[in-house]
Amino acid sequence: MKILGLDSSGLAASVAIVEDDKLLAEYTTDYKKTHSQTLLPMLEELRRMIELDLDSLDAIAISSGPGSFTGLRIGSATAKGLGFALNKPLVEVPTLEGLAWNLWGAGCLVCPLMDARRNQVYTAAYEFEARGEVCEMKAVISQAPMDIGELIARLNGLGRTVTFLGDGVPVYLPAVRQELRVEYRLAPAGLNRQRAASIASLGGVYFRQGRSVDAGAHRPEYLRMSQAEQDEKQKEACRA
Amino acid sequence: MKILGLDSSGLAASVAIVEDDKLLAEYTTDYKKTHSQTLLPMLEELRRMIELDLDSLDAIAISSGPGSFTGLRIGSATAKGLGFALNKPLVEVPTLEGLAWNLWGAGCLVCPLMDARRNQVYTAAYEFEARGEVCEMKAVISQAPMDIGELIARLNGLGRTVTFLGDGVPVYLPAVRQELRVEYRLAPAGLNRQRAASIASLGGVYFRQGRSVDAGAHRPEYLRMSQAEQDEKQKEACRA
Repeated sequence: MKILGLDSSGLAASVAIVEDDKLLAEYTTDYKKTHSQTLLPMLEELRRMIELDLDSLDAIAISSGPGSFTGLRIGSATAKGLGFALNKPLVEVPTLEGLAWNLWGAGCLVCPLMDARRNQVYTAAYEFEARGEVCEMKAVISQAPMDIGELIARLNGLGRTVTFLGDGVPVYLPAVRQELRVEYRLAPAGLNRQRAASIASLGGVYFRQGRSVDAGAHRPEYLRMSQAEQDEKQKEACRA
Repeated sequence: MKILGLDSSGLAASVAIVEDDKLLAEYTTDYKKTHSQTLLPMLEELRRMIELDLDSLDAIAISSGPGSFTGLRIGSATAKGLGFALNKPLVEVPTLEGLAWNLWGAGCLVCPLMDARRNQVYTAAYEFEARGEVCEMKAVISQAPMDIGELIARLNGLGRTVTFLGDGVPVYLPAVRQELRVEYRLAPAGLNRQRAASIASLGGVYFRQGRSVDAGAHRPEYLRMSQAEQDEKQKEACRA
């Protein structure tokens, strides 16, 4: 089973192809170029390098949000375009689950922090449980936008060691250092940002569980209204 | 601090650039092309994509073995050439340590299995220990070529849950399933083969500890004589 994975939910752009339990190729960059300049050229480069027949794909796994509004739209538009053109199903992998999958088999809670501005993070907490020869990932805190203070209070309440990762770590580390009362660790480079290999790998698990959608039905999951939508809503409330 | 990582010790070819705690770029392929066709073109592609000035590198981390003799020689020759030309130090990262670093923070023993043919694996076992905000990796079984039966006996003796990864897994899984008496797991796609991001990330840790060598002094660590060398030695013994 061959899965294409795409992630452009954050600053990194990442493309990967996984076949069964093997990564055939991955290309990831975290650079100042926009995703519209990187994502498709990177896919084309991989396709050429491993002589990939796109028709041989079984599904396209897309990091479905939350994340940067523009990044998510570029990723979703790319996945939908490929899905339509190739007549392949899409597998929506929540961005925070994809991030946590980087730390597959971790011995403690895994807590992705994505900077959502205004003292908020998109976050969740996961744990890994052995099930035969593999591990399953379970949400201990469901994904949500959350004030960093509220997250820290909930983690203090759980009383378990936690590993943080994501672009929110450098932003909220001072708050973590000051207020968190449980042991914590910071994931190292190579594992601490979005990677399409994790989207394709976890996407493969979900695809085998029957969790796929038609290209036409896929929508990114922003978890929060955009600033423009919030401003508009506030204006309407004032007018009412 | 900016580290270039290279790994061509196995079937995968992988190039990555890590700056401090962030992956700037990674390009990995596991395809039937030879490393001489992939490694430098992949580096050139990354260099162009992230407009990397090679002079800005602090060191070159190389997966130093064990592994495929030809693959190690191509990787080492590439690293030495770059080190000489750019006047940068090399950081030797043992291949098995690089592999295990993929599973940073694992809650159990991590045991890379690299197929060494003739019923042997290049192997080791590591555990992660928290140290402040990071984890350190410690060898519980030192790297060595080993009969798969001997490895399984040692793991049974340790009595701890273990995660396997590496190209030896599909080869020796029947033996593991039959003889291993402790709980075990198999790492998923994206984490279960060599990745240059791990070489660059762990190479950065070693570089900060002062563990670097001049390009001229670097040699790959084969851990075992090549078949040709063994044949030659045997012939000499017969002549003696």
